[in-house]
Amino acid sequence: MARALITTVPFGDKNRLPLELLENAGIEYLINPHNKKLTEDQLADLVADFDVIIAGTEAITDKVMARANKLKLISRVGIGLDSVDLKAAKRRGIKVSYTPDAPAPAVAELTLGIMLTLLRSVHVSNALMHQGTWQRIFGRRLAEVAVGIIGVGRIGARVLRRMKGFGTPRILVNDIMPNRELNRELKEFKLEWVTKEQIYKEADIISLHVPLTQLTKNMIRREQLLSMKQDAMLINVARGGIINESDLYDVMKAGHLSGAAIDVFVQEPYNGKLMEIERCLLTAHMGSMSVDCRTRMEIEATEEAVRFLAGKPLESEVPQMEYDVQSQGL
Amino acid sequence: MARALITTVPFGDKNRLPLELLENAGIEYLINPHNKKLTEDQLADLVADFDVIIAGTEAITDKVMARANKLKLISRVGIGLDSVDLKAAKRRGIKVSYTPDAPAPAVAELTLGIMLTLLRSVHVSNALMHQGTWQRIFGRRLAEVAVGIIGVGRIGARVLRRMKGFGTPRILVNDIMPNRELNRELKEFKLEWVTKEQIYKEADIISLHVPLTQLTKNMIRREQLLSMKQDAMLINVARGGIINESDLYDVMKAGHLSGAAIDVFVQEPYNGKLMEIERCLLTAHMGSMSVDCRTRMEIEATEEAVRFLAGKPLESEVPQMEYDVQSQGL
Repeated sequence: MARALITTVPFGDKNRLPLELLENAGIEYLINPHNKKLTEDQLADLVADFDVIIAGTEAITDKVMARANKLKLISRVGIGLDSVDLKAAKRRGIKVSYTPDAPAPAVAELTLGIMLTLLRSVHVSNALMHQGTWQRIFGRRLAEVAVGIIGVGRIGARVLRRMKGFGTPRILVNDIMPNRELNRELKEFKLEWVTKEQIYKEADIISLHVPLTQLTKNMIRREQLLSMKQDAMLINVARGGIINESDLYDVMKAGHLSGAAIDVFVQEPYNGKLMEIERCLLTAHMGSMSVDCRTRMEIEATEEAVRFLAGKPLESEVPQMEYDVQSQGL
Repeated sequence: MARALITTVPFGDKNRLPLELLENAGIEYLINPHNKKLTEDQLADLVADFDVIIAGTEAITDKVMARANKLKLISRVGIGLDSVDLKAAKRRGIKVSYTPDAPAPAVAELTLGIMLTLLRSVHVSNALMHQGTWQRIFGRRLAEVAVGIIGVGRIGARVLRRMKGFGTPRILVNDIMPNRELNRELKEFKLEWVTKEQIYKEADIISLHVPLTQLTKNMIRREQLLSMKQDAMLINVARGGIINESDLYDVMKAGHLSGAAIDVFVQEPYNGKLMEIERCLLTAHMGSMSVDCRTRMEIEATEEAVRFLAGKPLESEVPQMEYDVQSQGL
């Protein structure tokens, strides 16, 4: 009997369909018994004798794969591949697939909510009110700021689409593929294609929508943070590690940046120093956590596993480009 | 020398221009020395010998006006007139003007931010994270819920315009003037004009954009709250008193409603029981508090005072309809 290890949690929680897909296909499964993101060692201890991992963002390293004596497919629930050693997987003949489109609408919508929250200090006022302190805080509107988007792929483009009704006067964009073909709907925006450095200097609110790669790891350190406006706002709903967390803590502690919103962390669950900073909005890796997107991700990743174990071709195998990006830091 | 009492605070804080307008016109002014919303008695004690009040939302009652021996104009910084006894003002020959358009964009933008925050429990996750607790909370997207808007005037219509990029499948609307002529831009939405009762029953997220009048006071009480879906969300950025605060506390305490966001209160500064409820997002009457809108409101209200004291006609006098609404509860 084929066996699947489901590492991502929660899974099948709001909608049992992905579990039923496995049951109907006669696939035995185990859901992560630790009920939180697995460490490399925990995963290595669990992984023997499974044919497939239906995977979250935990590190699937060469060491883990060395213990995975039967593993033939890693089916990622989500888009990021920073957690998977693609080169090792290829060498060991383990296929990797993912669900690149499913999380995008949920991440984009959370981004807009967070932008508006930061702009108006809703999180700060809410914390003060719950402590009994009334303080009317001034804010800004999207119609009077320059927004910088780094990474205009599946998610960045959807963020822009949701900004349509807000009349933002300046939108600065940067992407590893400059002048990326955006769909017609976005043509109404007068996007300014600029360097990342120009975004750091000129944008009032900066949002990151890039994968974690050798190029983007620690992309924003003390130097980049200090080149931002004193009252700039910074959003990371992409991946932990793109912004250096310790540098962000230091500059915010010293009064730089009027706000930040961090949804993703180097170490998750996060339990670090940013929690001391009230104007730093913190969420628990919830970008994709809308019921509809999360369900779609789980179903797509599960269907891929079922298909594979039935000997059918994969439909969403990770393309060669992702292997190149990871190995060459492109 | 003409004298103006500025009761609303902060005033001239981010932009000194309104104060300069008064200075250049040779108008002596006093800014609210209590630096928070005045009670009726505090205002009555202050108001003698002022020709004009540049007013916030404090109660300007007949009793206050009886002490205002020189008062000839109340120039409201904002749109709501629930705080001003219009009938008494008319009887005493005191003119009233306001700034009905200036706050609308800021209120609409805050509303969108709050909707997205409630839908994804951003405020709850932020509070948990700052206490060191990691919990990934499921949410919903605007693209999968029914939104109900009660009041589709200056602000409600602007909320709808900002929802353009989000693909909300059902939008239920209600207004005292049904089928109100909305501008062409909103025609793309398939708005369903329904009763308030239908909105309470069917909407997943309900936002109020009505003035406080005899008709809307306590419009949402226990009965209406309990007719809402168990997991509905409710937003009040309009005026305190439209939702009965004590009933809201009771039903939420008992587990009804998945979230609420309250920016306005019967008694401000607010210091009541809703602060016990973590999923109730609380802000300090910040709807209009974007620098641009607030500045525009202050300038418009000040210009009206300067104009009036120079013997020129008012440009934004409160129309007769507002007097009718207040006296007849229309």
